[in-house]
Amino acid sequence: MRILGIDPGFERLGIAILEKNKNDKRERVIFSICFKTSSKLPFNERLFLIGIEVKKIIKKYQPEILAIETLFLNTNQKTVMRVAEARGVVVYEASCAGLKVFEASPPQIKMATTGYGRADKTQITKMVKILVDIEKNKTSDDELDAIAIALTAFTHIRN
Amino acid sequence: MRILGIDPGFERLGIAILEKNKNDKRERVIFSICFKTSSKLPFNERLFLIGIEVKKIIKKYQPEILAIETLFLNTNQKTVMRVAEARGVVVYEASCAGLKVFEASPPQIKMATTGYGRADKTQITKMVKILVDIEKNKTSDDELDAIAIALTAFTHIRN
Repeated sequence: MRILGIDPGFERLGIAILEKNKNDKRERVIFSICFKTSSKLPFNERLFLIGIEVKKIIKKYQPEILAIETLFLNTNQKTVMRVAEARGVVVYEASCAGLKVFEASPPQIKMATTGYGRADKTQITKMVKILVDIEKNKTSDDELDAIAIALTAFTHIRN
Repeated sequence: MRILGIDPGFERLGIAILEKNKNDKRERVIFSICFKTSSKLPFNERLFLIGIEVKKIIKKYQPEILAIETLFLNTNQKTVMRVAEARGVVVYEASCAGLKVFEASPPQIKMATTGYGRADKTQITKMVKILVDIEKNKTSDDELDAIAIALTAFTHIRN
């Protein structure tokens, strides 16, 4: 099974494809990228580029599920509204391609990856690197977040 | 020229197509609808239905511009985040179809339609009905909001 994990954003979008088949002991990251859009572009063009990128990756890797974080309002309210717009585009493209959508909150992701719902970012990063096979040498924080959410989806599907 | 006006939402989406050609004295509403999605559906399916509807309307009426309200955080923070996701889908579909995107804040819309930036809803509704030709007998508030934003775009383009 293949799961597309996405850490939503419009400046930087973490994208990962994880795979685990019947005989696999653990999940493998078969693709990951931190997709960036330039702040010099109008916002609608950035949304456009995000949607096209997600569409392209879905077409190439044919995942069955989109795993994406639920958003919560943080201190930067203007940013979070734009992140929500980008999230909408991602969910929309996944739905157009027939993917099921799995949503998880940050505490659920922490619980699934570290066993502790209030784990910090460093703990999650460490555990993600232990839990899955990542072939790339350098993986950005956004990619690791995308891997963590995909991993959370695998955990929930297994149980 | 044809402008697609959208009052963003996921429960109810106000959609209007306004037209004004060289010899026209004023804008005409050539199509409007309040597009609803059922609360029984998962949110991603509602986003999907919204995107497909907008795509269909753009294809049919071939507007050149999307006019859409900028969102502000209100008291219902959960709802506004979902409205932002729906807004993202609308802007995305418009960008995919090559439309330019015109954004206006609520005070700008009030100013353009009534000449007063702090006008209330009833005043806007009355003015919109005076300013444009609406053929339909019954037009919902969401449609009137969509007409108001399209009208705002016409005002800004004229000036």
